[in-house]
Amino acid sequence: MPLSQTSYGKSRIRLVQVSRRGDRHELRDLTVAVRFEGEYDTSYTEGDNSNVLPTDTMKNTVYALAARERVREPESFGVVLGRHFLDRNPRLRTVHVEVVEHGWGHIPIGDREHGQSFVRRGPESRTARVMTDAQDTAITSGVADLVILKSSRSAFAGFPRDEFTTLPETQDRLLATSLTSYWTYRSEEVDFGPSWRAVRAALLEAFANHDSLSVQHTLHAMGQAVLETVDAVQSITLVMPNRHHLPVDLSKFGLENRNEIFVATEEPHGLIEATLSR
Amino acid sequence: MPLSQTSYGKSRIRLVQVSRRGDRHELRDLTVAVRFEGEYDTSYTEGDNSNVLPTDTMKNTVYALAARERVREPESFGVVLGRHFLDRNPRLRTVHVEVVEHGWGHIPIGDREHGQSFVRRGPESRTARVMTDAQDTAITSGVADLVILKSSRSAFAGFPRDEFTTLPETQDRLLATSLTSYWTYRSEEVDFGPSWRAVRAALLEAFANHDSLSVQHTLHAMGQAVLETVDAVQSITLVMPNRHHLPVDLSKFGLENRNEIFVATEEPHGLIEATLSR
Amino acid sequence: MPLSQTSYGKSRIRLVQVSRRGDRHELRDLTVAVRFEGEYDTSYTEGDNSNVLPTDTMKNTVYALAARERVREPESFGVVLGRHFLDRNPRLRTVHVEVVEHGWGHIPIGDREHGQSFVRRGPESRTARVMTDAQDTAITSGVADLVILKSSRSAFAGFPRDEFTTLPETQDRLLATSLTSYWTYRSEEVDFGPSWRAVRAALLEAFANHDSLSVQHTLHAMGQAVLETVDAVQSITLVMPNRHHLPVDLSKFGLENRNEIFVATEEPHGLIEATLSR
Amino acid sequence: MPLSQTSYGKSRIRLVQVSRRGDRHELRDLTVAVRFEGEYDTSYTEGDNSNVLPTDTMKNTVYALAARERVREPESFGVVLGRHFLDRNPRLRTVHVEVVEHGWGHIPIGDREHGQSFVRRGPESRTARVMTDAQDTAITSGVADLVILKSSRSAFAGFPRDEFTTLPETQDRLLATSLTSYWTYRSEEVDFGPSWRAVRAALLEAFANHDSLSVQHTLHAMGQAVLETVDAVQSITLVMPNRHHLPVDLSKFGLENRNEIFVATEEPHGLIEATLSR
Repeated sequence: MPLSQTSYGKSRIRLVQVSRRGDRHELRDLTVAVRFEGEYDTSYTEGDNSNVLPTDTMKNTVYALAARERVREPESFGVVLGRHFLDRNPRLRTVHVEVVEHGWGHIPIGDREHGQSFVRRGPESRTARVMTDAQDTAITSGVADLVILKSSRSAFAGFPRDEFTTLPETQDRLLATSLTSYWTYRSEEVDFGPSWRAVRAALLEAFANHDSLSVQHTLHAMGQAVLETVDAVQSITLVMPNRHHLPVDLSKFGLENRNEIFVATEEPHGLIEATLSR
Repeated sequence: MPLSQTSYGKSRIRLVQVSRRGDRHELRDLTVAVRFEGEYDTSYTEGDNSNVLPTDTMKNTVYALAARERVREPESFGVVLGRHFLDRNPRLRTVHVEVVEHGWGHIPIGDREHGQSFVRRGPESRTARVMTDAQDTAITSGVADLVILKSSRSAFAGFPRDEFTTLPETQDRLLATSLTSYWTYRSEEVDFGPSWRAVRAALLEAFANHDSLSVQHTLHAMGQAVLETVDAVQSITLVMPNRHHLPVDLSKFGLENRNEIFVATEEPHGLIEATLSR
Repeated sequence: MPLSQTSYGKSRIRLVQVSRRGDRHELRDLTVAVRFEGEYDTSYTEGDNSNVLPTDTMKNTVYALAARERVREPESFGVVLGRHFLDRNPRLRTVHVEVVEHGWGHIPIGDREHGQSFVRRGPESRTARVMTDAQDTAITSGVADLVILKSSRSAFAGFPRDEFTTLPETQDRLLATSLTSYWTYRSEEVDFGPSWRAVRAALLEAFANHDSLSVQHTLHAMGQAVLETVDAVQSITLVMPNRHHLPVDLSKFGLENRNEIFVATEEPHGLIEATLSR
Repeated sequence: MPLSQTSYGKSRIRLVQVSRRGDRHELRDLTVAVRFEGEYDTSYTEGDNSNVLPTDTMKNTVYALAARERVREPESFGVVLGRHFLDRNPRLRTVHVEVVEHGWGHIPIGDREHGQSFVRRGPESRTARVMTDAQDTAITSGVADLVILKSSRSAFAGFPRDEFTTLPETQDRLLATSLTSYWTYRSEEVDFGPSWRAVRAALLEAFANHDSLSVQHTLHAMGQAVLETVDAVQSITLVMPNRHHLPVDLSKFGLENRNEIFVATEEPHGLIEATLSR
């Protein structure tokens, strides 16, 4: 009975790194996952662990390399980890490192920032995935759970109707989503921090300014804006749940709803995805 | 078999209100709960529903009054709802309204804000509780899930030791919490929005600036700062889980941890509470 | 600025105890919380930790006493912990211990049970709370997240209507809840395991057999059944969210819904509570 | 800028179906997701909705077909939905239907079951995925969140060590996982309910009886047992997080831990995957 798609690793390794430069500290708050693919079939079939680096050692390695090499960007830390594991494990063919960065900002006090105190931003996070094998290193950057809403210039009409269609057409609805997006680069020579901020800004600006005819339409405009404004990006995927905000029918109460009162729902939700490439 | 502590109501009523003033829209995103206490024993003992306002009607009322009266502040909306229900339900003795406001900000584009597009701030939320009966209206404001961390000036030492104590003393640890706090006012004449922002700022500033000898010590400094700087506040409660960040022992790997590499944990956690009053 | 309602402790202490009796193992899977109330004001006001038993020591004590005394029932383990802490901490006035037990059953293989392998039952859990002070030990037992549904003999009608009421009356609806209940005892001489099972059985049987006119009505019948059938119980509290299952209007599609097709919802939900005592 | 990997659909459609056969009712509690792939590029690039069946109509269709055709098994309901959508939407190339079934059992009263009252089993769920295109229907069945633990016959030793390895070898540890598994069939002529129960039983029995040298080793034994005992299955994938239960070091307290006292952890966790085929 042939084995396929085997992999093993460690997930949810929680790492917080504090960098202290005088009065100004910086925080990197990461959740890391490591996954190995390779010639490990006998560990499954015979319980032969002689080549199975323990996942506990993977975890220790994340902490040790963070101390020795320092986390600069999630992507570069993934590259460091990937190469380390590939160099030392002869049965390892491909190693995947996923990093989720939880954002913190310095606490503002009056018009300055306190250097050593932080407040969690969220729910948004920054993500990176690095796949390393003998030939190649493939890097993907992303953003997850960026919750956004527009209260104007969003329509949905002109769709086909069948006997199960009850949705009214609308020229003015709320459009809300929790955006997850990830993108690849044209080369490995990327300044990951500034690129990430440029992509995020392009996504937000396109979302805000778009005359939306549907979630699909706005998703496309957002992806296109990224490819047009951030040269380093090769392709981008967007995943946009449609978090429906339903106008409340107030006419039953003798009141008018001038597109002001909505029920926010999470279940069920639309789910729209696409990838745009150069 | 006597009945006591009866109550009934509706929870997790989701209301989003959009206010449109020209190009600038404002968003209030609320989760509302309504709870009735009163002379409803026969509904339990006999299934007599003749005085039981359906919880579905409570929900409808939240939407109708939001449309008719407009939500200005979570606290004032709670007062409007409480009085409405008390006026109309003769068996009702006390009505509790809880409002959680989920924060959104306008999307920044360059150095200005887009008036009709929003990004969710969080995980923090603003809370309000209003208890109304024939004599009185008691208002409590609060903040929940304000996640904060300080990377300097936090110690924990001088504690008693017994045969089960293994914790080392420390003069320099990370201190992190997910703050929940709520406060009462000296009078009903409060400008709720500015007061809320002033309390939040005082909490953050005290947390950032405190020379902490323990979570208790910092909690007290934060409460005291609120009472000293925000006149309108009568008493304040703070609930501070201690989200432990454990320094990783790198000496096993021949490396030194200069207080830079930590494991973030959520389980188990300390939990510290207190109320300060004038 | 006077302090009140101070407390501190440790939450979410995860303890799994395996008891090995020959081929038959037993599992207790617990989440424990310990909370101290006492004369600890100077720890808040001055950062004086000289009497503050670290919450880390509380955690260690839970593991050490589990090993030394063995967990028999959640309630008795709470009593052991409470007395231990009270005996040793002169500033401690009241100690609260909360225990949540996560249920596991032996894996069935054919018509017997495997003695050393387990499958998680859930989402239901068993709970215990023990409050200990110099005079007294107060024990509360409970069940949480017991999700139940009845598909017959549930009505809701005869309620008052106002201009915001749209709910139709119904003689045949689904009634579903996620029951949380807790109860006190007439004396400390209780066999906690059998009592817990008897209460749970009485709750389920009353729920199943009741001709329900409302959630309140069924809640009362369930509490009454416990007091009638389990002598040891002194009082019982039930908290019953009404997890609405809404019949889908199929008439728009030319179909009839013979009370068979429902949308399950969690938001918003009713919330009904009461306490019954002897 | 070419588009790829476009898809759109509706997720988290909650459907409860009650079947009433005299005194005995049956419950199917499902969460359904529908996803379309096809020639929808102009909906992205131009906002052309003329072929975009609204996701709201997808949702309505789920309820309508449940009423008209009745849900027999999650798999067969997925087939009905897939064919319906494919027949009517000329731009649709592939439709994916995912069904999660939440398990309920009849409430036991004494030694019989109440026919019209139910208690939620869980956290486990049954899953089905059906992919339909013009040529083919591919059906996958599965189980998710089946939480299992064995307290004997689980070892982990003989693994390689490097300078970051601190894990001790063990011959007797707790092995716990939250199993997710899914499998394909050799033909479409399957009796899905009995097959599902047979696979589940084979998974549990192999887990319980295995002399485990690692998670990989037990995962393989479980997959092999399914292929050996359930003829209908063509291939099976297992995903097994290793939910570590760490023995508490009691020696610091002068106590011995005879492999009885553990800390249950969820973070970090191992993660092991593989697919076995005939």
